[in-house]
Amino acid sequence: MGDFDLAPDIGHILDSMNLKAIAAAYAAAAKEASRELVGFDAARRSRAIVAIAQALEDRTAQIVAENAKDLEQGAADGLSSAMLDRLKLDPKRIAGMARDLREIAGQSDPIGREISRETRSNGLDIAKVSVPLGVVFFIYESRPNVTTDAAALCLRSGNAILLRGGKEAIHSNRLLGTLIQDALASSGLPAKAVQLVTETDRELVGELLQRDRELDLVIPRGGEGLIRAVSEQSKIPVLKHYKGVCHVYVHPTADPDLAVEVVHNSKVQRPSACNASETLLLDRALDPSNARRILQRLLDAGVELRGDGACRTRHFDLPWKDATESDWDEEYLALVISVAQVDGVQEALDHISAHGSSHTEAILSRDAESIERFVLGCDSSSVMVNTSTRFADGGEYGLGAEIGISTDKLHARGPMGAADLCTYKWIVRGAGQVRG
Amino acid sequence: MGDFDLAPDIGHILDSMNLKAIAAAYAAAAKEASRELVGFDAARRSRAIVAIAQALEDRTAQIVAENAKDLEQGAADGLSSAMLDRLKLDPKRIAGMARDLREIAGQSDPIGREISRETRSNGLDIAKVSVPLGVVFFIYESRPNVTTDAAALCLRSGNAILLRGGKEAIHSNRLLGTLIQDALASSGLPAKAVQLVTETDRELVGELLQRDRELDLVIPRGGEGLIRAVSEQSKIPVLKHYKGVCHVYVHPTADPDLAVEVVHNSKVQRPSACNASETLLLDRALDPSNARRILQRLLDAGVELRGDGACRTRHFDLPWKDATESDWDEEYLALVISVAQVDGVQEALDHISAHGSSHTEAILSRDAESIERFVLGCDSSSVMVNTSTRFADGGEYGLGAEIGISTDKLHARGPMGAADLCTYKWIVRGAGQVRG
Repeated sequence: MGDFDLAPDIGHILDSMNLKAIAAAYAAAAKEASRELVGFDAARRSRAIVAIAQALEDRTAQIVAENAKDLEQGAADGLSSAMLDRLKLDPKRIAGMARDLREIAGQSDPIGREISRETRSNGLDIAKVSVPLGVVFFIYESRPNVTTDAAALCLRSGNAILLRGGKEAIHSNRLLGTLIQDALASSGLPAKAVQLVTETDRELVGELLQRDRELDLVIPRGGEGLIRAVSEQSKIPVLKHYKGVCHVYVHPTADPDLAVEVVHNSKVQRPSACNASETLLLDRALDPSNARRILQRLLDAGVELRGDGACRTRHFDLPWKDATESDWDEEYLALVISVAQVDGVQEALDHISAHGSSHTEAILSRDAESIERFVLGCDSSSVMVNTSTRFADGGEYGLGAEIGISTDKLHARGPMGAADLCTYKWIVRGAGQVRG
Repeated sequence: MGDFDLAPDIGHILDSMNLKAIAAAYAAAAKEASRELVGFDAARRSRAIVAIAQALEDRTAQIVAENAKDLEQGAADGLSSAMLDRLKLDPKRIAGMARDLREIAGQSDPIGREISRETRSNGLDIAKVSVPLGVVFFIYESRPNVTTDAAALCLRSGNAILLRGGKEAIHSNRLLGTLIQDALASSGLPAKAVQLVTETDRELVGELLQRDRELDLVIPRGGEGLIRAVSEQSKIPVLKHYKGVCHVYVHPTADPDLAVEVVHNSKVQRPSACNASETLLLDRALDPSNARRILQRLLDAGVELRGDGACRTRHFDLPWKDATESDWDEEYLALVISVAQVDGVQEALDHISAHGSSHTEAILSRDAESIERFVLGCDSSSVMVNTSTRFADGGEYGLGAEIGISTDKLHARGPMGAADLCTYKWIVRGAGQVRG
């Protein structure tokens, strides 16, 4: 009979009240910390970031021990060896995390920058000045090094952060969270400026996504399912980091050797990355022997080719698979590439507009006019000319560590560094002016 | 029996299929036009804006005649005289609209601006360049002058726009839409770069809000209900223009005469504006006779005072109403002001943080330290020092016409001009570099 009484329902209601209260407490503490943070200048915030780096170095053995628990659990849960490798922390990787932090601590401060300033004819002095966003809610998967990178980028930009990592990394992240808060406290900064969400309940994330009075921005970084779920539930603005369906278009004038190497690198160098290429667009007027060299180099690297009719006919003796309609929209993240023939720059741009994810596209060409048409007409966050799509990356662009690569167009586009975690305010100084 | 057969349901299904198709057609045409627009330089786009201004001037009589139909319908529908006045177009107002357009045509072009550019050690040339957002979906109420302003701001920034005005202005807007498309066509630009949504079905708006492949940004400008409904339904990013619960904080050191005039102007000069003040925060240490002068000037202007206990006790002989808890969150848009006593800058900031809408707040003070604490700690889009909240406005800030005042923190904050309708892309030029 116990199975049929009301207790489970009441338990569920109590649970959900409890989660609401937990979410409210996290959000209120983060907001309060963010309001306190404005009182600390760049040097103070830098010193706190260095203190975190120091703590990583000092407590390496303990971090490795906690990480071992995650690895053990992960192995028991049947995580793939690739996922276990992403999860793993060893002294070398921890030293790399500390190095990242010291680099972020040394970056110029994005806060308090005068974006514009003008004295109007009525004497009002109007300045547009960069300020922190406030509180960032960062939801991410696996890699524990992202925990310290994200915390440091937020401190660099004067923001408080709520960190919600994957449950696979919970032991590692709990220790990192404690160690960060200790470093903040010992530097005199509010410890709650960086909070790790230690509960692994999914419903708690849902509750936090309702707290738009306290939280200013949500960044979900992970699989498409995570990003969609967050976008649908959130009352807080979301900066999405969707998939990369990246294209390389080979113009007839492309340098043949360059084309072979750049297409190979774009696909093969790290196929699991979002800036790896998924589709190759070969111009109809491209010399078939040059096209063949590009394709052969991919085949030699073990890449599966999925071609449209024109490509399969032209190079009929290569081991093609038929590309289906869904192939053009696919992010393989693997040694597979779809290959289409296009008739000129405009058709390449039309294909990209219909199937791309506005992430990164490349043109390989020695013809200035075709390059300019492609650069102008390609509506993606990164447009590469005669170089690999794999360079679309915060580090490669000189931003230092990145909190993600935005596929949105608003606010920040492409690799996002500390400066992209700012907004601005208008400061208007007068001497009693009133509006007539 | 006719009333009970299946026809109405089928009719409804057909209607909704039809609306979906109409939305798809609007969105596809707008996207195509936006892709064509990148081929037109600033001078071509300016000439098109001037052609619209010319058309307004040439066809003034016809515009007045169409507007008369809206006014007649509005009067029949019982619109208030204030709403009818907002709706009204006469030759003088039409001349003003044309003047706005010529001013926007003369603004500097926000497109193609190099935000940053660097050659990396591997030889890659990396530029961050401003580009149009693509397609803007603008949903607004009443005033038909907003139609031409919004169209011109989008052309200035190379965007296509879908305009969905209020049904009160449908006759005026239909003519303006035609006139704009004629001017675009005669200037050689794609006419569909500016499309007026002529159907007044609310469901069509809902369908358009699902078209996130084609539409890049939604700006709802109007009442809170409209903005909330749009935000909830939209799959497209929304820039919100919520209410302004603006505060004026009077520090004990404020110049007494300045405080009387600035508080009066902030509340009384145009109470229906979002940047009018709704709450007055009087410092506990403010000289009571100075506080009294401020309050008396408001009373003389017909303002209703709603005070907290401390204010009512201190100035017991004034005609107060009791402020209830909800008063602190209220945007009156009328000659009503809530008045609270606060103990110092921090308590003023705490009140604003708890009840404000992050729009515009002012401090009146002659003490530099209190001013800097307020400016730093106030998380609003505009912070005024010794001047009226009413100055928070695109025109007053030198942006020219504004498409709205953003109360969001992402992308654009406060008054938004043409430059705020841009995003950027990264253009990376190489000579065959591959990633190692």
